[in-house]
Amino acid sequence: MSTKQDIRPGEVIVDLPTNFDAGVYFIGRIQTPWTKRSDCPKQGDAENGPICRVEIDPPWQQALDGIERHQNFQILYWMDQARRDIAQQSPRSDGNTRGTFSLRSPVRPNPIASSAVKLVGREGATLLVRGLDCLDGTPLIDVKPDICDHAH
Amino acid sequence: MSTKQDIRPGEVIVDLPTNFDAGVYFIGRIQTPWTKRSDCPKQGDAENGPICRVEIDPPWQQALDGIERHQNFQILYWMDQARRDIAQQSPRSDGNTRGTFSLRSPVRPNPIASSAVKLVGREGATLLVRGLDCLDGTPLIDVKPDICDHAH
Repeated sequence: MSTKQDIRPGEVIVDLPTNFDAGVYFIGRIQTPWTKRSDCPKQGDAENGPICRVEIDPPWQQALDGIERHQNFQILYWMDQARRDIAQQSPRSDGNTRGTFSLRSPVRPNPIASSAVKLVGREGATLLVRGLDCLDGTPLIDVKPDICDHAH
Repeated sequence: MSTKQDIRPGEVIVDLPTNFDAGVYFIGRIQTPWTKRSDCPKQGDAENGPICRVEIDPPWQQALDGIERHQNFQILYWMDQARRDIAQQSPRSDGNTRGTFSLRSPVRPNPIASSAVKLVGREGATLLVRGLDCLDGTPLIDVKPDICDHAH
């Protein structure tokens, strides 16, 4: 979990709203080889990355029906370790402060990440995919065919 | 708002969990030319689609700093008109029932959509973009540079 100590020079913190506007259901979990944020690759590799496991919980397992007709998927997950109250950030890579919306940092008001993955197998309610870059145990929020992947 | 009447033959409805696992903040609104779902294009066109307005609310306006260094963005929005409790769907297009995760339908446990857009201008806290396909008034949840868009 990020803490106040993570704030870097120039970063701008805002007061988060008191209430949420909508709610998210975690529909499963992602198993990856990475247990520390510093171990995660900067970007997933859908061709040569390691196979990760996307485990779907009930009652959503039946929503996997027909999934093998596609190969390329978009996975949405919730970066539950990231703080959400930083509007301007100074990335470690260069230290130059800029707005959160000009960065892909996990630190953002809604910590939702999107990865393009390739489906390489299925074991019951678990999808085996390449292309993820997230921490082991990351909550899953959606699986959908890539916009360019037409069923076969 | 979808209602029970929208259920088509073969569709499978589930009981949604009693509680949410995480909360979303709406960070702005999207203005588009489409006021009915049937008017929305099936897919946005970042080259030739109409210019839409992405309006950012305080306190997130300062998170736009530096955004002009990028041209291609990923926009995440919340499809607040869609029901969330259908695990298998029978799309109007062909009527063949299949799992929600093998479709890009707005009807899904977490109604989050992702669009690839091109930034064509900015008016204060409003971004002018091409590539959206959502209803006018759709709540905005994130703006981030496309994964392949490196700053210039």
